[in-house]
Amino acid sequence: MEGQGMETGQILSMNGGCGEESYAKNSHAQNAYLLRTIPVLHAALLDFCTKKLPAIVAIADLGCSSGPNTLFAISQSMSIIHDTCRQIGCSPPQFSVFLNDLPSNDFNTVFKSLPQFQKRMMEENGQDFGPCYIAGVPGSFYGRLFPAKSLHFVQSSTSLHWLSQVPLELSDCSDKAMVNKGKIYISRTSPPRVVEAYLSQFRRDFCSFLRLRSEEIAPGGHMVLTFRGRRMPDPFPDESCLLWDYLGLAFQDLVSQGLIEEEKLDSYNTPYYEPYVEDVRAEIEREGSFTLDRLEIIVAPWDGVNGGQRYDRRKTAEMMAKAMRAVNESMITSHFGDQILDSLFERFIDIMARDTKEVEHPSLVVSLIRKS
Amino acid sequence: MEGQGMETGQILSMNGGCGEESYAKNSHAQNAYLLRTIPVLHAALLDFCTKKLPAIVAIADLGCSSGPNTLFAISQSMSIIHDTCRQIGCSPPQFSVFLNDLPSNDFNTVFKSLPQFQKRMMEENGQDFGPCYIAGVPGSFYGRLFPAKSLHFVQSSTSLHWLSQVPLELSDCSDKAMVNKGKIYISRTSPPRVVEAYLSQFRRDFCSFLRLRSEEIAPGGHMVLTFRGRRMPDPFPDESCLLWDYLGLAFQDLVSQGLIEEEKLDSYNTPYYEPYVEDVRAEIEREGSFTLDRLEIIVAPWDGVNGGQRYDRRKTAEMMAKAMRAVNESMITSHFGDQILDSLFERFIDIMARDTKEVEHPSLVVSLIRKS
Repeated sequence: MEGQGMETGQILSMNGGCGEESYAKNSHAQNAYLLRTIPVLHAALLDFCTKKLPAIVAIADLGCSSGPNTLFAISQSMSIIHDTCRQIGCSPPQFSVFLNDLPSNDFNTVFKSLPQFQKRMMEENGQDFGPCYIAGVPGSFYGRLFPAKSLHFVQSSTSLHWLSQVPLELSDCSDKAMVNKGKIYISRTSPPRVVEAYLSQFRRDFCSFLRLRSEEIAPGGHMVLTFRGRRMPDPFPDESCLLWDYLGLAFQDLVSQGLIEEEKLDSYNTPYYEPYVEDVRAEIEREGSFTLDRLEIIVAPWDGVNGGQRYDRRKTAEMMAKAMRAVNESMITSHFGDQILDSLFERFIDIMARDTKEVEHPSLVVSLIRKS
Repeated sequence: MEGQGMETGQILSMNGGCGEESYAKNSHAQNAYLLRTIPVLHAALLDFCTKKLPAIVAIADLGCSSGPNTLFAISQSMSIIHDTCRQIGCSPPQFSVFLNDLPSNDFNTVFKSLPQFQKRMMEENGQDFGPCYIAGVPGSFYGRLFPAKSLHFVQSSTSLHWLSQVPLELSDCSDKAMVNKGKIYISRTSPPRVVEAYLSQFRRDFCSFLRLRSEEIAPGGHMVLTFRGRRMPDPFPDESCLLWDYLGLAFQDLVSQGLIEEEKLDSYNTPYYEPYVEDVRAEIEREGSFTLDRLEIIVAPWDGVNGGQRYDRRKTAEMMAKAMRAVNESMITSHFGDQILDSLFERFIDIMARDTKEVEHPSLVVSLIRKS
């Protein structure tokens, strides 16, 4: 059972390069969240700047990916810190920036864009900006990435909804209570123990993430996390599950056409979870290393994936198929091979275009401060 | 005149990936130097370890490239430090490792090999090894790469013979005294002012390299540099120029066949220089930030490129053509396009195979200590 029981780091990667199928070209939705995160980022950084700033501020972006969003969040943070320092009359710091993602991420494309990025940051922020030293850090954020107390500000956008692995219990197909029949994520038809297994995996992963970062972030350091999550306790709201249901239905079509085996589909689940906002709050309190500064829910519209184009159901379905493919392709290929990809996402488009449901896409923005 | 007046960082990159033409598959010669550098590395690190070591030792490899050599030097250094600490009875440090090369370097291939590398380092050095935090730092080492005083040990192997750019004067083709007729590097037929321009460029670049590193390395920190250089003051010894002469002759053949224009060849020069050992010593003294600890000449055999296979002139020529192509292809393509590459290196093989000269390939190993 390829892909099950494997760490996400071994099978997940956003599609690289800059082509039509790339994550770089298909990450409008993620950008919509980034834009909505800025006010929280701003508040956190204002607070950060009023403390005594180190001469070199070390910032990490965890799950930076490869594309226009990679440097957007980090550039916002540096500009806010730079501006704030000028406004309150202290000299702006230098920056040491760490861009983290899985070793399979397309860092080459990111690195080639850096000379241009550095130039643009100087133009936009003035000659007293920086210097800004940029490094890439390959590795899973479910493991240690940085020396102890070496970071002052950590941000992560649209990454923490990826679990470290599919809950191990789900790969035991002999246990009927653990088979997520015809589905690839939590759905209304999922057995309760499947839902519980996902929740447990999230708790373990999120707690581990907080503990690891608590070692890496200096006392008083800040962290702003944005990831998909639920505003209601119901584990199956359409706004969490609809797109995964569409993709599950597309898989079921391939089963009925004999293109993939039913057991193959039943043993495939996505290492992804949208936690309920109050579960997130509870985990932060339980883990105990961070003070919760702010916890907000931001919402991207149904057609955020269109990047502002006029709404059209089929067009939105096509764009959503590209977005879903850019993030899921590596995992689907690892389990099913790459032969089914085109048919699968053509079916996804048809299924989504025929349906009439529209949902918002909520995310959680969590602003944390490392306790001293 | 593409490629002339451009920074080396914009046109130089070792061939990426792991294929037949890749630098990864064609860097036996560079490995021969690495092996011969180890005794100097060892001596420098022994000295380094007898001082009070920081809890986390920050090591940088400048010009790490992509291939089997990338992690070899850094793994040697970490193992030597780890062993030495155990021998002298102090607890081994953690490591923060920075792998630097130009933004065009194939970091993706390096990063994908890191999980395996980390595992191997633990197996070879024991469970008390590390942790070792690894980051990639894209950028030219002729610019600032790291925050002030942030490094403890810097190493660079077979990289510093690359200049920051072709001497600007050489791109002025209207000045006959600056035309390096039919050649692509210094040769016996080069006008004296061409030779002087190369020497001046080296002095500027090397001095700038030392000044930049003196800012980044903490007082008492060490640096070990290995790069091609001359053991004699004669600027044209065969052991420096022979291979470039062969490649120049191959270019001239393409000119006589009408495949490239004569002016196009005359305006192409390689941003490369093998300095005389005493010039290197003088520059280190003139710059003044470092104490020269050791300066040694190491020599790789004529057929080091064969990786230990039985000597055969044509086979050696073929291997040398691959090695020369892996490092020169990006620059040649930038100036001439990629159409000529196959013919050019076929001609190179014929010319080298027909000749009977054999030379050794000397390099300099320089061990420096940042003055306190």
